[in-house]
Formats: sequence, structure tokens, C-alpha cells
Amino acid sequence: MNAIHDLQAVPRDVPAALLDALSARFGERFSQSVAVREHHGKDESPYATMPPDAVVFPESTEEVSAVAALCNAHRVPLIAYGAGSSLEGNFLAIHGGVVVDLSRMDRIVAVHPDDLTVTVQAGVTRKRLNEEIRDTGLFFPIDPGADASLGGMCATRASGTNAVRYGTMRENVVNLTVVAADGSIVRTARRARKSSAGYDLTRLYVGSEGTLGIITEATLRLYPQPEAVSAAVCAFATVDDAVRSVIQIIQLGVPVARVELMDANAVKAVNLYSKLGLRESPMLLFEFHGSPAGVKEQAELVQEITAEHGGQDFAWADKPEDRSRLWAARHNAYFSGLQLRPGCKASSTDVCVPISRLADCIGETTADLAHVSFPTIIVGHVGDGNFHVQMLLDPDSVAEYEEAEAFNRRIVERALAMDGTCTGEHGVGLHKMQFMAQEHGDEGVAVMRQLKRALDPNNILNPGKIVAWDA
Amino acid sequence: MNAIHDLQAVPRDVPAALLDALSARFGERFSQSVAVREHHGKDESPYATMPPDAVVFPESTEEVSAVAALCNAHRVPLIAYGAGSSLEGNFLAIHGGVVVDLSRMDRIVAVHPDDLTVTVQAGVTRKRLNEEIRDTGLFFPIDPGADASLGGMCATRASGTNAVRYGTMRENVVNLTVVAADGSIVRTARRARKSSAGYDLTRLYVGSEGTLGIITEATLRLYPQPEAVSAAVCAFATVDDAVRSVIQIIQLGVPVARVELMDANAVKAVNLYSKLGLRESPMLLFEFHGSPAGVKEQAELVQEITAEHGGQDFAWADKPEDRSRLWAARHNAYFSGLQLRPGCKASSTDVCVPISRLADCIGETTADLAHVSFPTIIVGHVGDGNFHVQMLLDPDSVAEYEEAEAFNRRIVERALAMDGTCTGEHGVGLHKMQFMAQEHGDEGVAVMRQLKRALDPNNILNPGKIVAWDA
Repeated sequence: MNAIHDLQAVPRDVPAALLDALSARFGERFSQSVAVREHHGKDESPYATMPPDAVVFPESTEEVSAVAALCNAHRVPLIAYGAGSSLEGNFLAIHGGVVVDLSRMDRIVAVHPDDLTVTVQAGVTRKRLNEEIRDTGLFFPIDPGADASLGGMCATRASGTNAVRYGTMRENVVNLTVVAADGSIVRTARRARKSSAGYDLTRLYVGSEGTLGIITEATLRLYPQPEAVSAAVCAFATVDDAVRSVIQIIQLGVPVARVELMDANAVKAVNLYSKLGLRESPMLLFEFHGSPAGVKEQAELVQEITAEHGGQDFAWADKPEDRSRLWAARHNAYFSGLQLRPGCKASSTDVCVPISRLADCIGETTADLAHVSFPTIIVGHVGDGNFHVQMLLDPDSVAEYEEAEAFNRRIVERALAMDGTCTGEHGVGLHKMQFMAQEHGDEGVAVMRQLKRALDPNNILNPGKIVAWDA
Repeated sequence: MNAIHDLQAVPRDVPAALLDALSARFGERFSQSVAVREHHGKDESPYATMPPDAVVFPESTEEVSAVAALCNAHRVPLIAYGAGSSLEGNFLAIHGGVVVDLSRMDRIVAVHPDDLTVTVQAGVTRKRLNEEIRDTGLFFPIDPGADASLGGMCATRASGTNAVRYGTMRENVVNLTVVAADGSIVRTARRARKSSAGYDLTRLYVGSEGTLGIITEATLRLYPQPEAVSAAVCAFATVDDAVRSVIQIIQLGVPVARVELMDANAVKAVNLYSKLGLRESPMLLFEFHGSPAGVKEQAELVQEITAEHGGQDFAWADKPEDRSRLWAARHNAYFSGLQLRPGCKASSTDVCVPISRLADCIGETTADLAHVSFPTIIVGHVGDGNFHVQMLLDPDSVAEYEEAEAFNRRIVERALAMDGTCTGEHGVGLHKMQFMAQEHGDEGVAVMRQLKRALDPNNILNPGKIVAWDA
């Protein structure tokens, strides 16, 4: 099965009565223009554009609730749109319907610095949040490559480079406001740091990609900006040497804040794109957070471990501007990769394995890459056992897409055989549905289907994603 | 409504065919004796004994699956029993039925020291786990007062004294094996450290108290035993001074491993029970984990902060045996309290509030306590905003129970008004059901009910707990 090419959009009927009602209520904030629809039917995946029938720009949870109630009454698909940066076809309107673009819900609702929490509307992006709260001395660590919306990051259970120290969205959402399929408004939890008061509704919606409810607000955990921060890069002769260093660092419990892998191609890409002069060999990027003494202690230990694995050119980036440049380059790796092959489209793998299997998984993958016909880069949140192969594909070549899909299936099967997952942080969307039964068993998928049918009995919420409606 | 006294057990009919089938299959591991039934119908709450009709002692997930399939076919309640240490009537057989006692499922299935994970059967207790893995250099930090079973700890989303640093069961379960209502066996996730592959089935079952499925195995996160450990106690003139110290410590992001409050009565109780000579005034107990330098740095900072709040007699317990005695005393606080009033039964509150409101919450509670007629002690996982008032009640006095229930309602309402929760770690069971709508709203409870009905359509799994079947 070729998930990219076999997929056909099958729009459902959208009654004029619904469109009229939305138009009447939202006026200029309702659009059926081709440009707006196409913009909202396209993400960063290689899938073709699949536009919705209409786009609404709500400004409050109550407005989202009103749209949901209307869509539910008319049995019309309802899809949430954040920053549009997802990678797996997560929000494409394969059955048409109505998109709610949450970008106008961009208010920081409440900062509670004393409790280390902030409440935001879903459309606030991660970078803006950190700019707005900088003066509190706190920060929000989760950082996927793109400047994603925080609602979208909740919906895909995003993570990024800091997850090795601070966890993913799973660990950093205190509560959510969610609009259910029928328009009812659910607040998933109180603002206490822990609770055992019944089912964990927060975690039910985190990672549900808009298929169980639409997240309109989130309360997130914040952390004190570390007293001291230090960053470093270290080059290795082989990817294997780099990965074995990381495994040892994690097993020793060194509380590194970031530890990122780039293969030689990735370094070449970021050198080109971000005008860095890094040595073009496999490389680890580190960041350490803590007290000055604690950072020094961590860094010395890490330097020792990398030296044992042949690490060379351990170079510090202690000045804030050097650190910023380094991490901006890492965050831009995805876009840098695209520049290696002008006009290409990227497809990215996202497996994550237990750390003890990471060297094997990357090693077998590297061997496999010797046989593929398109350029690739490898970047990875290796402290979590997660890495990406970004495949740079000719958008006009069916053969390359098919080769990429076959490669992706092999890497997923390899990761699953190592008790890993098909997706560490990008979500399922359309592209990973083919692996759900293999990963979760028929029994696990059956439970997911029961959840979907219970919370969205008319199958209006981002239909056709995560699990198929019918067994 | 008086939750303790108004409650009537309403047994369902248990067909002889089911009992015969279980007896035939399990032989000596099936019992209907009064003693065994009563033992399994009683927890540490003040509720009267509510025995099941029969108890089975399975030894494998497949055996639990067989029991579930039978109970489901006969529409008979099925309840999991771990160590029997729950506090809220969590497993009492209010509708009779079959209990599966998981204590024979006590095998450590696999230790993966390189991945910092362990897989255990549900009946393994937390203390035994730590004894068995000690030589790996790793430990499992979650420590409720009792030596609970790890399956039970998953089921109630337990925490304890280390949660301020290591999180609760929510953060420390990698995956679960769960027997669903129809007997199907679900593995909730792979062993990778993170995943965004669909709905978070692990967190769905963590905290579900046996009402959505029966947890038979769990893979848990382990941590390297800290290189250095240091513990200390510090006395204060008032509870308020102690709490304000804690708030400042948390807000500064000091990574304390433990910070526990005892009021003067609690210190008196542990002095009596554990033969300690602690000064009988409000007290904080600390533990610090890290490198020798890191521990020293944390301890100095904490000592400064407590001094600013009038902390006195800051005393170190650096020798392992002194530390063990101190923490054993803290863990025995519950049983120590019982000794303050021989023959009493305890009822414990469990609110948890945002840390900024903790001083207010404890202050108002202390003022309220001046008017109650029974003895109490206060202990608290104050770094999380969580504390317990243990009320020592005359088991023959309806008046005292009613007074205790009224006090509990007041403290819960106070915590909810502060955006806190009715239960930080004990779970809902029977006793907190009365607060679920107030805490989660009708919409939140409706979602929980939808989940229950979807995953347990015949209402056989620990029926009558967490949310009522009918709206």
C-alpha cells in the first residue's frame, strides 16, 4: 500500500444550511474562497492538498462550541487548524467539511508565576509564549522544529530537543479546555500539580489530533530559567560513536537538557542554510542547565564520556548569541535539508526505540540508506531514542515516493521489532495509520476505536485519522 | 449526604454456573469462605466490610482474562485486589461479584537496566521491587505510605514523598498490560520513552481504579540511585512558616527529592510509634539527591530559605541508617496516628492545591480544626501542594463520622475554590464520588461516563466507583 498515492479524498455532503448559518454568524470570519480553503488543506507532508469546504476563524471557546454544535447537527466534518506545521497529513480534509482556524485565539489568558503555570488559548505559538513570559524568569521548554501553535502541540503530543530533560507535552499539560463533538465545553482538570480524581481526561486529549475534541485552551507547566546554561558541539568519526556516547550519558542519569544528533549530511545542510562552519562529520549538540557548578559538573562528565568514544573538537558555545545561533540552526535543520535539493518535498521518519537499541536501530538504518536513491539527512533527539531520516524527494517522481514509503515501512518494522514506536512526536495523522495495528495489536486499536465512537458518535471530528471508523 | 453511613451494598445475582466454572478451573485458588471474602471486602477506609461472593487467585494475565470473559458473559461484577491498602473504599464489593486477588502475580518479568525500565506483574509490591533491583544501581521512587502493590498504585495513580522530584505514577508508567471487560488483553504502549502513536491508553488506565480494565503487568521507569543523598529535619514555630518555606523552595526550582510537612501532633505520633526524639513542633523533612556538590548546594540554599522563615534546629541525617529511620517514621505516620487514639478508625482528607494557595489552604484548615471534637494529625507532600488531615474517629460514634464528613466537605470545597482537587493521590473510590461533578463539571463527568460505558458496556468492572453509571 502506498499511503501517499492511493489516498483519495472522499468529501461528504455539506448542506447549504450549515454554510449559511456559519456565514451569518461569522461574517468576514467565514470563508469559502479557494485560496483560503487550499491554504488550510495543506501541511508539511508530501500529501496533495485536500481542502475543506469552508474555514471559520473563531475568537473564543464559545464560538468553537457553536461551530461544533452546528457541524454535529449536520454530520459535517470539523477540523482544527493551528499553525499548519504538521508532517503526517494530520489535519487534511479528506472528507471535506469545516476547518476552525484557531490563530485568532492567541491570548495568554493567565500567568501564574508562583505556581509555575500559564494558561493560553490554543493559537498562541511556542515562541510567542516564551517572548511574553520572559520577564517572569520562567520558560516553556517544549520546542518542535516549527513555531507550532500550543494547541497543535497538545493535539499531536509534540516534543523536541528539550524533552530529554523536561518531558513532552504529555508531562507538561496541566489541564485543557476542550470542545466536544456536540459542542459541550469540558475542562479536563484543575490547576493542581497532581490529582487522582478519576480518569485522566487531560492525557486522553493530548495526542488525540482533534479526533476526540477540539482543544481551545491549555494550562502548561513552566520552569525557572536556569541560572547557568552552557552548550557544546562534539564531532565523531561515526554515527555509532556518537550514539554510544549518548546511551552512556542517559544510563548514568546525567541531567542533560538537550542532546541532539546530526549526521554529516545534516551538518552540511545547516552549514549551508545557517552559515555555520561546523565540521561536516557526525555530531552531537549538547545543552546543560543548572547552577554554575552543576553545569560545569555535567559538562565535564559528558566531555569525558564523549572522549572515550572518540569524540573530537569538543567546542563550547557559552555566549547567549552563539547558543542561539547553534539552536536556531538545529531547529532549521528541516528547512536546511530542503535546500540540499532545490524543489524537493521532504518526507520524514520518526521512530523512537528504547535507548539500549538506539545504536542498532540507527546502524541498521544507516546501512539501509546506502541503497536508497534520494538524498537524506539524519537528525535526532537521541537522548529519548528518537531520530528522523528526512528524505528529500522529487515531487514529480512516483518511483521516489514509493521507494521512500518502502524505506519508511522498513524503519518502522525495525523499530517495532525493538519494542519501539512508529512515531515519537509527529503523530499518526494519515501516514502512520497503516502501522497502528502492528504497533498496538488489534486489541489496542479496538480500544482506540471504542474511545472514538464513544466521544464522537457521528464521526465528525477530524474523521479518518488515527484509527479507521470501521474495524 | 453521609457517604459512610448512607451507603448500602446492593449485591447483584451471581449465577451458580459462574461459580461452578471458576471453581472447576481454579480449584484451591477459588474461595467462597467467609473469612477470605471478608478479607477482600475491607480496606483502610472507615467503610463497613462489603465482601464479594467469591475470590480467585490468578497467576497469569491469561487467567485474569478467563475470569473476565466469564464474569462478562454472566454480567457479574469483577474487582481487582492488590495489597488491600486503599483508603477510599476503592475496591469494596458494593454489588458483590468476583474479586481477583493479584498477589500471586508477583513476578518481576524483565529488568532492562540499560533502558532504566522494569516490567512487573501487578502483585509485586513497591518495597520488594526495590529490594530485587538494588544491585542494578537503580530504584523506583514512587512510595505511598503503605507497601502497596504496583498494580494498585497504577490503578489509583498513586504518588508519595518523592513525587515532587520524580512525578507520580502518571509520569512513571511506560506501558501496561490490561485485561478488558470482555477478557481481551491490551498492551497499552511499546517500551520507547515517548510516543505520539495515537490515544494515550497507558494514561487512560492509570488512575481508573479497575473500572475500565484490570492491570496485570506494568513497565515502570527506574532512576539511577543518586550518587549522594542527604536528609534533614527543620522545626518551625508555625505550620504557616513551614509552608511558606516550601513555596519559596519550589518557586526557585530547587530540585529537592522530598519535602514533607508534619504538624506538631504528627511529630508527637511518630515520636511515640517510632521512638524518635523529634521536637514536637511543626516540622519539615527534606531529602536531597544528586552529586555530592549538587546535594550540598541544594541543602545550603534550602537551609537559607528555612532560616528566613524562622526555621530552627536544622538537623542532618546523613548516615543511611538515620535516614532510613526518619523516612520509615514518616511512612508510618498513618499507623502512628492510629496509636494516638487506641481503637480508633482513621479517615483521611487528600486535597491538593496550586502551590501559591497552599499556605491559605492549610491556614484555613488549621483554623477549622480548632472546632472539631476528635484528634487529628496533618502530614503533607507539600512540595506538590498536597496534604492530609488524618481524623482519628471513634468507630462507634455516628456523630463523629458525621462531623468528619462535614469537615471533609469543607476542606474539599476550600480546595476546589482554589482550583485544586479533592484527591491528590488516594483516588476516588466510593468516598469522593460526591465531589466529582463539583470538580469536573457535568461535562467532565459526562465524558468519564462515556468512557466507562464504551469500555465496560455491561458495567462489570468495579461497578459503582468513580462515576455513577446513570447520569
